[in-house]
Amino acid sequence: MLLLYHTQMSVPSRFVRLVLAEYKAGAELSEILPWERPDNFLLINPAGTVPVLRENDGPPVCGASVIAEYLDETRGYALGARRLLPDYPNQRAEVRRLIHWFLVKANEESAQFFLEEKIYKRMRRPTEGGGSPDSNILRAARANLKIHLNYIAYLAERRNWLAGEHFSYADLAAGALLSSIDYIGEVPWEKEPVVKEWYQRIKSRPAFRPILSDSLKGIPPANHYVDLDF
Amino acid sequence: MLLLYHTQMSVPSRFVRLVLAEYKAGAELSEILPWERPDNFLLINPAGTVPVLRENDGPPVCGASVIAEYLDETRGYALGARRLLPDYPNQRAEVRRLIHWFLVKANEESAQFFLEEKIYKRMRRPTEGGGSPDSNILRAARANLKIHLNYIAYLAERRNWLAGEHFSYADLAAGALLSSIDYIGEVPWEKEPVVKEWYQRIKSRPAFRPILSDSLKGIPPANHYVDLDF
Repeated sequence: MLLLYHTQMSVPSRFVRLVLAEYKAGAELSEILPWERPDNFLLINPAGTVPVLRENDGPPVCGASVIAEYLDETRGYALGARRLLPDYPNQRAEVRRLIHWFLVKANEESAQFFLEEKIYKRMRRPTEGGGSPDSNILRAARANLKIHLNYIAYLAERRNWLAGEHFSYADLAAGALLSSIDYIGEVPWEKEPVVKEWYQRIKSRPAFRPILSDSLKGIPPANHYVDLDF
Repeated sequence: MLLLYHTQMSVPSRFVRLVLAEYKAGAELSEILPWERPDNFLLINPAGTVPVLRENDGPPVCGASVIAEYLDETRGYALGARRLLPDYPNQRAEVRRLIHWFLVKANEESAQFFLEEKIYKRMRRPTEGGGSPDSNILRAARANLKIHLNYIAYLAERRNWLAGEHFSYADLAAGALLSSIDYIGEVPWEKEPVVKEWYQRIKSRPAFRPILSDSLKGIPPANHYVDLDF
């Protein structure tokens, strides 16, 4: 049995949910809020971060890219030609570079600002750092997002999927990033036809369905969030 | 032929130099200063970060953990029982968790502050952000380092090497972290006998020699930096 500690809107957590769904590996979900660091969770991951995966009574597997490697090692072979990490070291290095790009760099430069300003600040009480969004931060996040959308377009124009010929973890990482920002309605799709076309392809995969049915109490998704034809 | 783009004192770069030395894989070194982002380097790694490894005319392998995976895939098998990533997925996940802990978390919370305040600020002109170290930042870095030294001691007391029975990438990652801070003389060895004993074991490995002969122009290492019996 798999148990995933995650934060619903967080990009690395969403990436792992997408990956698990691609493997058709059902997992029980346990939600951790990013500003809480419950003591019993620190015993599982002393870094206090999600996602963390546990399989049966095995040791915790901590961090999105570590989980991706673990799932490839334990289940990748069963996917055959649809394996999410390619066979050759050079190609694997390119997928891993892009996992880091989308889950760390792009996430820290864009998604995390949107989530903090437009979701987490609304979920917390004023005494816990809650409040209204800072428009300067949102402006910076939008400018940074533009650069990352350009980069996705650059890759999508030159390759069949983002890391090369085959669908891979790289697409799921970029998909997790945009799904989280799209929930908040901050992806300017009309200006990004190439990115939109790539995202339509990934959004229509069965593995995307659980992510698309996410809904936060009191903070519903943008209107087009669930539409495959947006 | 291997070519490594690196920054001499940077923890992730030092980690890769240690790893290459463990594989006895000679590499040509090309130094990149962290506050410069030369245009031709951005063509190699659009993130602008080191380390980056190139093998022959192959594509760039970007990032310390991505390079570690690449070297394990292309050379790990040849190390036999001395392989730096263990054989089992759970154990590999633990090594990867600790690579991230030391190269990212501990590095960002301690080493990067020491390097910026005590080395890079001295290397840059005042117009480039050079100047004298900020004692508040150094104080915070020392407090954070204390926590990470405690964590290394915690692991070293319970395990033969940091990730388990065998020497692994986890030890090299923690070794890279401490070597960089030790150059500046900021590791309080006298207060950390358990960490010191573990570090003495790793410091005496032949792979450590190139790191120990590092010397920055005008900023020599702490007196005991090269001593195996410090």
